[in-house]
Amino acid sequence: MSLPKKVEIVEVGPRDGLQNEANFIPTDEKIAFINAISKTGIKRVETTSFVHPQFVPQMRDAQEVFAGIHQDPSIQYIALIPNEKGYERALASNVQAFSLVVGASETFNLHNVRMGREESIRVLDRIIAKAKGNDSFIRYCIATSFWCPFEGKVDPAIVLEMVKRAEALGVDEIAICDTIGRANPKQVFEIFEKVMAINTQAVISAHFHDTYGLALANVMAALQAGVTRFDASVGGLGGCPFAPGAAGNVATEDVVFMLHEMGIETGIDVSALLSCVKQIQAFTKREFTGHIHKVKALQTT
Amino acid sequence: MSLPKKVEIVEVGPRDGLQNEANFIPTDEKIAFINAISKTGIKRVETTSFVHPQFVPQMRDAQEVFAGIHQDPSIQYIALIPNEKGYERALASNVQAFSLVVGASETFNLHNVRMGREESIRVLDRIIAKAKGNDSFIRYCIATSFWCPFEGKVDPAIVLEMVKRAEALGVDEIAICDTIGRANPKQVFEIFEKVMAINTQAVISAHFHDTYGLALANVMAALQAGVTRFDASVGGLGGCPFAPGAAGNVATEDVVFMLHEMGIETGIDVSALLSCVKQIQAFTKREFTGHIHKVKALQTT
Repeated sequence: MSLPKKVEIVEVGPRDGLQNEANFIPTDEKIAFINAISKTGIKRVETTSFVHPQFVPQMRDAQEVFAGIHQDPSIQYIALIPNEKGYERALASNVQAFSLVVGASETFNLHNVRMGREESIRVLDRIIAKAKGNDSFIRYCIATSFWCPFEGKVDPAIVLEMVKRAEALGVDEIAICDTIGRANPKQVFEIFEKVMAINTQAVISAHFHDTYGLALANVMAALQAGVTRFDASVGGLGGCPFAPGAAGNVATEDVVFMLHEMGIETGIDVSALLSCVKQIQAFTKREFTGHIHKVKALQTT
Repeated sequence: MSLPKKVEIVEVGPRDGLQNEANFIPTDEKIAFINAISKTGIKRVETTSFVHPQFVPQMRDAQEVFAGIHQDPSIQYIALIPNEKGYERALASNVQAFSLVVGASETFNLHNVRMGREESIRVLDRIIAKAKGNDSFIRYCIATSFWCPFEGKVDPAIVLEMVKRAEALGVDEIAICDTIGRANPKQVFEIFEKVMAINTQAVISAHFHDTYGLALANVMAALQAGVTRFDASVGGLGGCPFAPGAAGNVATEDVVFMLHEMGIETGIDVSALLSCVKQIQAFTKREFTGHIHKVKALQTT
């Protein structure tokens, strides 16, 4: 079993996680949550989303959150932007690392950003051109890369084509996302084997949700295909407001625990992550889908 | 990624699962549960345990359960026995397939059956000699093959030695068990790779619990090492009364779903399994650790 020695985590809890919480989390608590994450050893955090407040009310305080967090210079603070307007707002907030999203599935993309896939890609092309002019970091997320909640299984050829197009634009990172948590480890291995063979300059990352309980098995499959960067959210926060039935992201502390148990370095402190789980659970007041925060007398190696 | 075409499931819910339920499940309900499992396509069921009622009161009706179930001739109904007295009681109940258990860890074995490991092995030797005289099926379970709740990580050399000794006795199946759900996929792959290399006549099976959320990832690792038989329990029932902190077994419906998604045959009907989850949940009245029974609008391929 071939595994990497080191893995990097992108914490997406404050964005992909919190955007699904029904009750508004006070801005100060979001800021405190991101500040606590900054002390776990995590070096990349998706902090918020400059999306229209009407569509994702939880993120209506994007500007205040981004301005309010204590920015550790060793950490990359990323913001998601759905369109050019979001880009302008994020730029005004001094964001330097952007997550852009487009769905591999046409129908999902229409639900997610009310544009067809090709139109979305063209919008992103324009944003990328501007952002590169500003020397910004671009993370290009391909949503529903495995399954679409509306169309079913996604043709891997579409994802490969999108990876090649993003690479040609010179993006820094390409995230292959199982937005609804429906992929299986064999499918994950097969797609990532093909994606890794493209040998992009952009770092490839993997994004899993745990709807069917397969997220950690999918992380294993992606690791075996050579992936060394993973999105995850503290506690397993998350879901997708535009993907019916999607459960939370794979829990950061579960991924980090599994990696450490296998001798893979992350630079992240599991007990600090567990404190972050408690901190955000005080506001969400619901059961999280992560596993190890429920273990009594947790033993870590 | 090399995977088998076909996998066999041993349903251990009625035994390993129910033995951990605090409230006594009425005998008729246990019988109805096993009869329902018999209609899912599962061909091997661990039905009960002929253990001393003082130690596992939930199993005090072993005789009535075994006598009461409708025995489908295409299904193997297994009973666990901890010692010679249990063997005699099971034999009197016309049991023809036996699960024997011994811990790879000395301390766990003392807690589990109040005997040292070597003494346990000698007791099992005598039972196996008798049972083989009766042409019975013997399943030899090596508990705490990866981690012991008292001693920590278990030396794989002990497990390999125990596998060789069991094989020399001519047992039919050897189950390598992660009794507390603490193994990681790398460890699982490495141990099973060595166990499979022994090339036993006995079928090797893998038994995982989901304490740290790694059970399905561990199933994947064992599959990749060549294992084609897995223990699982409906809903993720289970734990271990003598292993503090252990969560339920990997959920049968989660394993079967994952296998089917990857095109691996099991002969088992996922929706029939989900009915079994509902059936037993009506009595246990608690959340199960399995995943797919919680998915709204479950899509299966």
